[in-house]
Amino acid sequence: MNGAEAAVHALIAGGIKVCFANPGTSEIHLVAALDRLPEVRCICCLFEGVATGAADGYARMAGHPASTLLHLGPGLANSLANLHNASRAGIGLVNIIGDHAPYHRRHDPPLASDIEALARPYSKWLRTSNTAADVARDVGEAIVAARTAPGQIATLILPADSAWNDGAMSIAAPGVRTPPKAPKERVEGVAAMLRAGKRCGILLSGNALYGRGLTAAGRIAAATGAQLLAPFSFTRIERGAGRPAVERIPYPVEQAVELLSRFRCLILVGASPPVSFFAHPCRKSTLIPEDCEIADLARPGEDYAGTLDDLITALSLRQTPPLANDPKRPSLPTGEISPQGLATAVAALLPENTIVVDESITSGRSMMALTKNAPSHDWMVNTGGSIGIGMPLAVGAAVACPDRPVLCLSADGSGMYTLQALWTMARESLRITTVIFANRAYAILKQEYASVGVGPPGRRALDMLEIGRPDLDWVSLARGMGVPAARVTTLEGFAIQLRAGLESQGPNLVEVVL
Amino acid sequence: MNGAEAAVHALIAGGIKVCFANPGTSEIHLVAALDRLPEVRCICCLFEGVATGAADGYARMAGHPASTLLHLGPGLANSLANLHNASRAGIGLVNIIGDHAPYHRRHDPPLASDIEALARPYSKWLRTSNTAADVARDVGEAIVAARTAPGQIATLILPADSAWNDGAMSIAAPGVRTPPKAPKERVEGVAAMLRAGKRCGILLSGNALYGRGLTAAGRIAAATGAQLLAPFSFTRIERGAGRPAVERIPYPVEQAVELLSRFRCLILVGASPPVSFFAHPCRKSTLIPEDCEIADLARPGEDYAGTLDDLITALSLRQTPPLANDPKRPSLPTGEISPQGLATAVAALLPENTIVVDESITSGRSMMALTKNAPSHDWMVNTGGSIGIGMPLAVGAAVACPDRPVLCLSADGSGMYTLQALWTMARESLRITTVIFANRAYAILKQEYASVGVGPPGRRALDMLEIGRPDLDWVSLARGMGVPAARVTTLEGFAIQLRAGLESQGPNLVEVVL
Repeated sequence: MNGAEAAVHALIAGGIKVCFANPGTSEIHLVAALDRLPEVRCICCLFEGVATGAADGYARMAGHPASTLLHLGPGLANSLANLHNASRAGIGLVNIIGDHAPYHRRHDPPLASDIEALARPYSKWLRTSNTAADVARDVGEAIVAARTAPGQIATLILPADSAWNDGAMSIAAPGVRTPPKAPKERVEGVAAMLRAGKRCGILLSGNALYGRGLTAAGRIAAATGAQLLAPFSFTRIERGAGRPAVERIPYPVEQAVELLSRFRCLILVGASPPVSFFAHPCRKSTLIPEDCEIADLARPGEDYAGTLDDLITALSLRQTPPLANDPKRPSLPTGEISPQGLATAVAALLPENTIVVDESITSGRSMMALTKNAPSHDWMVNTGGSIGIGMPLAVGAAVACPDRPVLCLSADGSGMYTLQALWTMARESLRITTVIFANRAYAILKQEYASVGVGPPGRRALDMLEIGRPDLDWVSLARGMGVPAARVTTLEGFAIQLRAGLESQGPNLVEVVL
Repeated sequence: MNGAEAAVHALIAGGIKVCFANPGTSEIHLVAALDRLPEVRCICCLFEGVATGAADGYARMAGHPASTLLHLGPGLANSLANLHNASRAGIGLVNIIGDHAPYHRRHDPPLASDIEALARPYSKWLRTSNTAADVARDVGEAIVAARTAPGQIATLILPADSAWNDGAMSIAAPGVRTPPKAPKERVEGVAAMLRAGKRCGILLSGNALYGRGLTAAGRIAAATGAQLLAPFSFTRIERGAGRPAVERIPYPVEQAVELLSRFRCLILVGASPPVSFFAHPCRKSTLIPEDCEIADLARPGEDYAGTLDDLITALSLRQTPPLANDPKRPSLPTGEISPQGLATAVAALLPENTIVVDESITSGRSMMALTKNAPSHDWMVNTGGSIGIGMPLAVGAAVACPDRPVLCLSADGSGMYTLQALWTMARESLRITTVIFANRAYAILKQEYASVGVGPPGRRALDMLEIGRPDLDWVSLARGMGVPAARVTTLEGFAIQLRAGLESQGPNLVEVVL
């Protein structure tokens, strides 16, 4: 068995079912091994940021990591922006990156680069497999690292000779490290805080925002009056009718400060104390009131759901059900396009079990508020602020959950960074409806420009903040990659296309002209 | 004056005329400063790899560096693949990257990352400006570094408070380090080698392939019978009728070995001994015969043209004119599309002074041979093997030389990495004709797959090597970004569209279905 075959056998043994790939010559032996071993589904991406973003979306929905296959330093480089987002979110994924054989690398061929240096900033686990015999063990350890709570980026560099040489062997299924629960003293301390009757917020992150963790948190909130909160950047919230209400901390600093000013104590479940995205010349970075007490209940890497269960026990809440959102559907809106109208249409039409990927930035700010009583669904957002994750996340979510519709709310500015994802949606017939809010601008930047006190932008500044002249035509862009598309200019038109898209079994795109 | 204004003043003082930009909130003060100081032309790019690739193309044609403006770690990350290519080629450019103010960064906000770690692998010069007072000096030093021969990547990180704080000052125009000529002994040694009558190749790189350097090299070749060679990866060759013949070392290893087997000595002008792109299990990396003597005439960072002039003196060749290609045009080809036919059409129609950017990979392998007698023109190629540089290079070349037509030969696979460049071509009305050779595959990978002895690819491997299903529709993609486009399926159709494109004053695209 050569190293490449051992790598794929080890992926299979470790439960990796999908590989989002953009390989090159140095990965040819891995492609050949994947060709012969159908247990790992290979999905071709035409840009590497699509691959890592898709692996992120897959992990968020599947609950276990995917792998990527990338070509040397530049292939990795193209993937880094979405690795930034994944690293911020505690997402597990396994990158496999080819390299030159060392005897070739010493000649400094054109594609030689310091792959480890490029990988290090976003890899919690990083190794180069120096011989074929090491490959299976290294892949196994990478998978263990990727699955370590809350999830980690593991990067394995595989020189071409380690892939093509014989002498490799298989490994048994690697184990999974069970995350520890928070120590008893912390749980008792938080229980005392909640019993004291102060106005508490519980800031949930990671997998405390869905499944068993969210149910437990909802019961605690119902019993104690504490409010459940999510950071502005979260990986996935289970929400809608029947699920506990969770309020997301808004992006605009004033709104975030206003929301957080209600609390005298903030209980953190895997979250950090909230800070603003950007500093401003005359504003502080932290968002919580100075007299707000902070309590770490569970820290990153700990078992959030188990710790919340312990808190329920400490509070003796065994019988309290979680407080759930009521089911409620608005009527379909009509007339001119508006953010409120678009959000109302989504709330009116969202099918139960939809996965919503939201990178609509400014245009979608009404979306979460208006959809909280829609049938239960999952909601995912950008986690690290590097825009261009929306469509890739949707690809990964759709691969992980082929029976669920995916609604990807994107924008013309953010969408352009990784529009190549549309092609993968078409090739894999993924059930994704992409909505592009086309405001012809980096609208968030125009808002920031106005807020930092540099005066109104002139023509040359507007040229950097607006992306019209020419307007992007997303209907053509989508069709160019094999995705059916329509443009709408009224709310009636939006409702028709959105309904058709969500009922379709394949990809489609709706451009909403704002 | 605040730091941002000082930065732009320093760019102007240092002769930087263009900034390829994709800014974000942390760069807002720089955008505001650029708004007020029109001496630096800002060009918006919708993806950062377009910005760095364009800065590369600009520097190759303008002979001085451009700057880029990038948003924090992820913005830099998106730009790295084309920085890899630029660093391999010795291209000068100045990256300016915003960062959080340190008092904000310590809260670890979502967009915080180790920007220096990400920048280091591809930056010869790297600094963070810690106060507004440092900014102008740092920008000045960055420009000096970028202009240091043969050209270097200089990266300046500008925290937001260094940009918005007052207390900055201007600088005088930074100096330029004059590259030294090669020492006399090396020149004498090479002169003796040439006089000895052995079959010599002179492998030129960087600016020895155009202008004064190429003229000098051509005279030496004419007088001594040495053959002028270019590496497979070169930045720019002045070629066609009236210019000296230079043979490019081919990509396929067998062809490269065959060409180089003719020589008993190889004289290097800024070049390294040629090696294959990739190692293969049963092949050595070096391409030159074992009995071929190698002589470094000029090393990277030295004055190639001045050294070649010294060699002329040492050889007493003052009167020899360079041996030049004859002018010759083939007739327009007709019939079915073929690589030979496409190259013949380009040779028949190429206007004098055209800048050809060639990232056609496998489809364009006949292009250089068949165009060597076309009217004089410049030819640029990918320098580091990271595909996705073609269209960005074309953007930069067209900005540097607005009076010259640019012909960008791309492919469907390589084009997809940075297709966002088409939008910048449209916004800036750049005179670029992009030809997409649409073979629906990473054809080079299919060739490599066949050559490494892993047997024929199965369906799952072909899914990674072919990019059809669905076929990309480049006419729609181009129109989606405001670039007029046509699809051709015959050589007659190609000739009609190519002629119209090259005569047009704006961007256009021709998709050639192979």
